[in-house]
Amino acid sequence: MKAAIIFGSKSDTEKMRGAASCLKEFGVEFEAHILSAHRVPEKLEEVLKRLEAEGTEVIIAGAGLAAHLPGVIASKTILPVVGVPLEAALDGLDSLFSIVQMPKGIPVATVGINNSYNAGMTAIQIMALKYPELKEKLILYRKSMKEKFIEENNNVVDL
Amino acid sequence: MKAAIIFGSKSDTEKMRGAASCLKEFGVEFEAHILSAHRVPEKLEEVLKRLEAEGTEVIIAGAGLAAHLPGVIASKTILPVVGVPLEAALDGLDSLFSIVQMPKGIPVATVGINNSYNAGMTAIQIMALKYPELKEKLILYRKSMKEKFIEENNNVVDL
Amino acid sequence: MKAAIIFGSKSDTEKMRGAASCLKEFGVEFEAHILSAHRVPEKLEEVLKRLEAEGTEVIIAGAGLAAHLPGVIASKTILPVVGVPLEAALDGLDSLFSIVQMPKGIPVATVGINNSYNAGMTAIQIMALKYPELKEKLILYRKSMKEKFIEENNNVVDL
Amino acid sequence: MKAAIIFGSKSDTEKMRGAASCLKEFGVEFEAHILSAHRVPEKLEEVLKRLEAEGTEVIIAGAGLAAHLPGVIASKTILPVVGVPLEAALDGLDSLFSIVQMPKGIPVATVGINNSYNAGMTAIQIMALKYPELKEKLILYRKSMKEKFIEENNNVVDL
Amino acid sequence: MKAAIIFGSKSDTEKMRGAASCLKEFGVEFEAHILSAHRVPEKLEEVLKRLEAEGTEVIIAGAGLAAHLPGVIASKTILPVVGVPLEAALDGLDSLFSIVQMPKGIPVATVGINNSYNAGMTAIQIMALKYPELKEKLILYRKSMKEKFIEENNNVVDL
Amino acid sequence: MKAAIIFGSKSDTEKMRGAASCLKEFGVEFEAHILSAHRVPEKLEEVLKRLEAEGTEVIIAGAGLAAHLPGVIASKTILPVVGVPLEAALDGLDSLFSIVQMPKGIPVATVGINNSYNAGMTAIQIMALKYPELKEKLILYRKSMKEKFIEENNNVVDL
Amino acid sequence: MKAAIIFGSKSDTEKMRGAASCLKEFGVEFEAHILSAHRVPEKLEEVLKRLEAEGTEVIIAGAGLAAHLPGVIASKTILPVVGVPLEAALDGLDSLFSIVQMPKGIPVATVGINNSYNAGMTAIQIMALKYPELKEKLILYRKSMKEKFIEENNNVVDL
Amino acid sequence: MKAAIIFGSKSDTEKMRGAASCLKEFGVEFEAHILSAHRVPEKLEEVLKRLEAEGTEVIIAGAGLAAHLPGVIASKTILPVVGVPLEAALDGLDSLFSIVQMPKGIPVATVGINNSYNAGMTAIQIMALKYPELKEKLILYRKSMKEKFIEENNNVVDL
Repeated sequence: MKAAIIFGSKSDTEKMRGAASCLKEFGVEFEAHILSAHRVPEKLEEVLKRLEAEGTEVIIAGAGLAAHLPGVIASKTILPVVGVPLEAALDGLDSLFSIVQMPKGIPVATVGINNSYNAGMTAIQIMALKYPELKEKLILYRKSMKEKFIEENNNVVDL
Repeated sequence: MKAAIIFGSKSDTEKMRGAASCLKEFGVEFEAHILSAHRVPEKLEEVLKRLEAEGTEVIIAGAGLAAHLPGVIASKTILPVVGVPLEAALDGLDSLFSIVQMPKGIPVATVGINNSYNAGMTAIQIMALKYPELKEKLILYRKSMKEKFIEENNNVVDL
Repeated sequence: MKAAIIFGSKSDTEKMRGAASCLKEFGVEFEAHILSAHRVPEKLEEVLKRLEAEGTEVIIAGAGLAAHLPGVIASKTILPVVGVPLEAALDGLDSLFSIVQMPKGIPVATVGINNSYNAGMTAIQIMALKYPELKEKLILYRKSMKEKFIEENNNVVDL
Repeated sequence: MKAAIIFGSKSDTEKMRGAASCLKEFGVEFEAHILSAHRVPEKLEEVLKRLEAEGTEVIIAGAGLAAHLPGVIASKTILPVVGVPLEAALDGLDSLFSIVQMPKGIPVATVGINNSYNAGMTAIQIMALKYPELKEKLILYRKSMKEKFIEENNNVVDL
Repeated sequence: MKAAIIFGSKSDTEKMRGAASCLKEFGVEFEAHILSAHRVPEKLEEVLKRLEAEGTEVIIAGAGLAAHLPGVIASKTILPVVGVPLEAALDGLDSLFSIVQMPKGIPVATVGINNSYNAGMTAIQIMALKYPELKEKLILYRKSMKEKFIEENNNVVDL
Repeated sequence: MKAAIIFGSKSDTEKMRGAASCLKEFGVEFEAHILSAHRVPEKLEEVLKRLEAEGTEVIIAGAGLAAHLPGVIASKTILPVVGVPLEAALDGLDSLFSIVQMPKGIPVATVGINNSYNAGMTAIQIMALKYPELKEKLILYRKSMKEKFIEENNNVVDL
Repeated sequence: MKAAIIFGSKSDTEKMRGAASCLKEFGVEFEAHILSAHRVPEKLEEVLKRLEAEGTEVIIAGAGLAAHLPGVIASKTILPVVGVPLEAALDGLDSLFSIVQMPKGIPVATVGINNSYNAGMTAIQIMALKYPELKEKLILYRKSMKEKFIEENNNVVDL
Repeated sequence: MKAAIIFGSKSDTEKMRGAASCLKEFGVEFEAHILSAHRVPEKLEEVLKRLEAEGTEVIIAGAGLAAHLPGVIASKTILPVVGVPLEAALDGLDSLFSIVQMPKGIPVATVGINNSYNAGMTAIQIMALKYPELKEKLILYRKSMKEKFIEENNNVVDL
C-alpha cells in the first residue's frame, strides 16, 4: 500500500501538501520527490523504476505552466497517474490543458486546479479496490465527512 | 474484474464508444447505462448500489454542458469515478470545468474532452493494480502500441 | 411569503449576504442553510422537503468551482431555483458554466458571478407575482433606486 | 396565466421555438414579439406596458452578441425576466456575459446558451407558485420526464 | 468643440479620469455625468438631448460587467459613441464583449479595457476633422510624444 | 467627404464588403486597398500619405490573427482609425485583442468581430459631425431602420 | 544546412506540409518523422541523436492537444526547437499553452496555431545567421513577397 | 556574437531582466533599447539598421497589451525575432495572441508569458549553431542545470 508524489519545483511544495495530508490521513505510505521531466529525465526514469519495483501503486504528479510532468510519467509507467494542475499563470488553464488533454492510450487522471488533496483522495479510492482496510476507512471518511458537515452546519445560518 | 459506463443521454452514445472499445480490448466486462443525475436520481442510486454489490470496480461517467453526472456519482460511491467531458457547447469547456473542479474530498478523475477511450484506459490501469492478468496485458499493450507506431511511422515521411 | 438561501460552504457566507440583505429589505422571511449536494445529499433532500412543506416559494443557491448544488436542488424541487456562481477559481467561470448550462427541463435561473443581491432581487420579483405588497414595494424600490441615483449623481461630475 | 417571448431578430426565431414549445406544453398563453432595445426602444416600451397591463407575468427574452435586450427589458419592468443567450459569435460567450452580469438591483434570470426551452420551463416554475394547476402539471411533467427517461433508457446500453 | 463623458457608477470615477485628462490636455470642453441606462433611463435620455442640443460632438461612455450603457447611448444618438470597457469581473471580458459586439447599424467605437485615455484621444481625433486647431494640436501631440519618448528612452538601457 | 477601407489580404474581401456597402448607402466616396503593415510598409505609408493629402477623413482597417494593420495605420496618421477584427482563428479573439488593446495615445476605434458594416457606420457618424447632409441622412437612416424593423416585425410572431 | 520536421501523428501530415514547403522553397534539406514523446520515447531519442550527429541545425515540432512533443524534444537537444501548435480541440488553445508556456531554461520557439509555414521560416531565419546564401535568399524572399503583394494588390479594390 | 533586447515601455524593464541575465550568463554581448513601433517608428527602424550593420544576430522583443512591437520588428529585419508576451491585462492573453499569431512569412518565435529568460535562452540556442563556444556552454549549462536540480532536490521531500 504505497503511493508516490512527484512535482516539478520546490516552489510547488505548499500546493502539493494536500496530497500528502490526505495520504497520511488514510495511513498510506508515500515518497515525495521533486523531479523534472525536462531537466532530469534519467533521474525521473530511475526513480520511477525504483518506485515501481518497490511496489508503488499510484503516482500523484503536480506541475504548472506547460505541465508535461504528469503526462511524461504516464508514458513511462502503467501505474495510474493522478495529475494536479498547479496555477502559475493564466489562472492555471495552461496547466489544466497540458495535463488533461493527453493523447489516446496514455491518460492522466486529472483533478481540479491546485486541488492536490483530491489527487490524494483519488489515489486512496484506487488503492481501496485492493485493500479492504482502505475501503473501510473510505466508508468511515465519507460518514465522518457527512457528520462533521452536519455538526458544523446543522443550524440555520444567521445571514 | 468489472467496470461500468454511465452517461447522460442517448445522443452521447457514439462519443462513449471509445470507453467500451478499450474495456473490450482488455477483456474487462462492463455494463453501460444511460442515467441522469437530475432526471432519475433514484434509478441512478439503485443502479449504483447494484453495480457496487455485484463487484463493479471502476465507474466511467460521461456528460456534457453543466456535467454533474460524474460528480454526483462520485458522491454516491467510494469507487473511483473516471469523468469524460463531452462537448456540447463552448468547445466542451463547460463540461470540463463541471467535472474536474470537484470540491475537496470527492474527486472525479478526469480525462480529455470527448476522449472516452482514455477513460477506459484509466479504468484498466486502476484495475491492473489488483489483477495481474490486466497488468500483463497493459505491458503488452504499451509494447504493441510502440511497435505499431514504429511500424506505421518508421520511415522518413515524405512531405 | 418565504424564501430559502442555501450554499455549499461556510467560507461562502460573506458572498451570500447580499441575497439575505435583499430579502430583508423587502421583508421576506427566509431560512439560510449550508448544505452540500455531495457531502450531505440526504440532509439536503430532507431540508428541501421541509422547506417545501412549510411553504418556501423560491430557493436561492450559491456555489463555487464545479458548482453542482443549484442544479441538484433544481432536480429535487419544482420551485424556482436562483443560482449564484461564486468565484473560487478561474474568475468564477467554472461555477458560472456549472450552474447556467443545465440540461433541458431542469433550469437554474442564474445571476451574475458573486452577485447574490441579484439572486435576492430575482426571488422578490418572482414572489411579487403572487403578493401585491411585494409588487408595491418593488415599484417603490425602483422609484427610490432612481431617486437615490439621481440624488447622488445629479450634478455634473468633476473629473 | 400569461407569458411573453421577446427576441431581437427574425434570424433568432428557430432558436426561440423551445421557449414557445415549453409554454404550449403547459398550456400557458403567450405572445411572441421581435423587438429591439436599440432599434425600436419606444415600441419595446409600448409593448411592455401593454403586456404588463394585460397581465403578463413572466417575460422571456433572447438575444445574441452584445445582448442588451433582456437587461433593457428588465430595467423597464418589475416582472421577472428570463434571459436566453443566443450564440452568434464567440460560442455565445459574448451573449452570456452581456445577459448574466447585470448590475445590482436589476437581474436577468439567465438560462443556458441557446437553451430557450429552459427559459420556458423557468417561466412555468415561476407561474406555478401562483397557479395550482401549473404546479400539478409540473409535478406530472417531472414524473413523466422520469418515466420516459427510464422507458427509453431502461436497458443496459449495447456499446 | 464639446464632448461628454458618461459612466455608470461613482466607483468608476478613477478609471474614467484618463478620458478627462486627455480632453483637458487638448483644451476640449466637456461635461461628465454618472448615469445608468437601467436605473435612470429618462434622465439619461434627457441629458443626452440637452448635450446634443448644446452641441456636444462625441460621447465617451464607460461601464463594467454587462456594460449596456455605451450601447444604449449609441441607440439614442447619432453622435459617435466611444466605449470604454471597465474591469469589474472576468478581467473585463464581460464588459469588452458587451460593448464591442453591438448589432448592425448601431456601433460603439470601443477602446481597450480600462483605457479611458484612449477614449479621450479617439474623441480628439474625431473632432480634429472639423476643428483645425485640434488637428494642429494632434500633430504637435504626436511630435511631442515622439520627442518625449526619445528623450526618456534615448540611451541604451542598462539591464 | 471621403473615407478609405484598408485590409490585409484578398481573402478578407468578402468580410469587408459590409463597410463598403454602408459607405455607399450614405453616398460617401471611398477608396479600398489591400495593404499589409508587415509586407509592404512603405507602400502603406505612401498610400496613407496620399489619402490624407486627398482629404480622406476616416480610415477603416480590417485584419485577422495578430491583427497589427489597424494599429500600425493609427500610428501613422492622426485621422480616426476604425478597426474591424476579422475571424481567422480562435473565434476572432486574437484579432479583437490585437486591435482593441492599443497602448496609451494611439487608439483604434474597434467594432465587433467581422462586423465591417458597423465600421462603415462609425465612419459615417464621425463624418456627420462635419457634414450636415450626412447628419440628415443618419437621422433618416435611424428613422427608416426603425420603420423597417416595425414593418417587418410588427405582428405578434407565430412560434 | 539541414533541418528536421517531427510531428506526433499521421493525421497531422497535411497541417505540417507548410513547414516542408517553406524549407524546400529555400533549398534547405530536411528529414520528416512521425514520432511520439509518449509512445516511442527511445525511438525519439535515437532519431534526435542521429539527426544531431548528422548536422541537423533546427528542429520543427508540431503537436495537438496536450502537445508535449516540442517541449520533450527541447529537453533532449540544445538545438533550437520551433513549435507548431496544431488545432485538435479547444480551437488549439490547449496545444498553444502546452507548447509556449515551457519552464525556465528549456524554451520552445512557438509560432501561430496551425502555421507550420512560419515554423519553416523561423528555421530559415535561424540558419541564415550561419549560411550567407540563405541570408541572400531571405532578402530576395522579402523583396519578392513585397513585389508579389504589390503586383496582386496594387489597384484600388472594387468593393 | 551579439544580441539585442528591445521592449516597449520603461515599466516593462523588470520583466525583461531575465533575457539580459541569460545573455550575460552566456557571455553574449547585447544592447537593450526601449522603443515603440507606434511612437517612434523611424527611431526603431534606425536602431534596427544600426544593430544589423553592427552584426546583431538575434533580437529579443517584449511587449504587453496589443503587443505589435515584436511583429513590427520581424517585418523590418530578416534576423530571428524572439517575442516575449508581457502581462498587462487579460492575464497576458492579449499580448500572447498579438505576438504568436503572425501572418504567413513573418514569424515571431514566441516564448511563455513574462518568461524573458527563455527568450534569452532561445537566442543562445540560435547563436550556438554558429559559435562553438556557445554550444559548449549550452552543453555545460544543461549538465549543470541537471546537477543543480539533483543537488537541490535529491532527497525524498518531506511533505
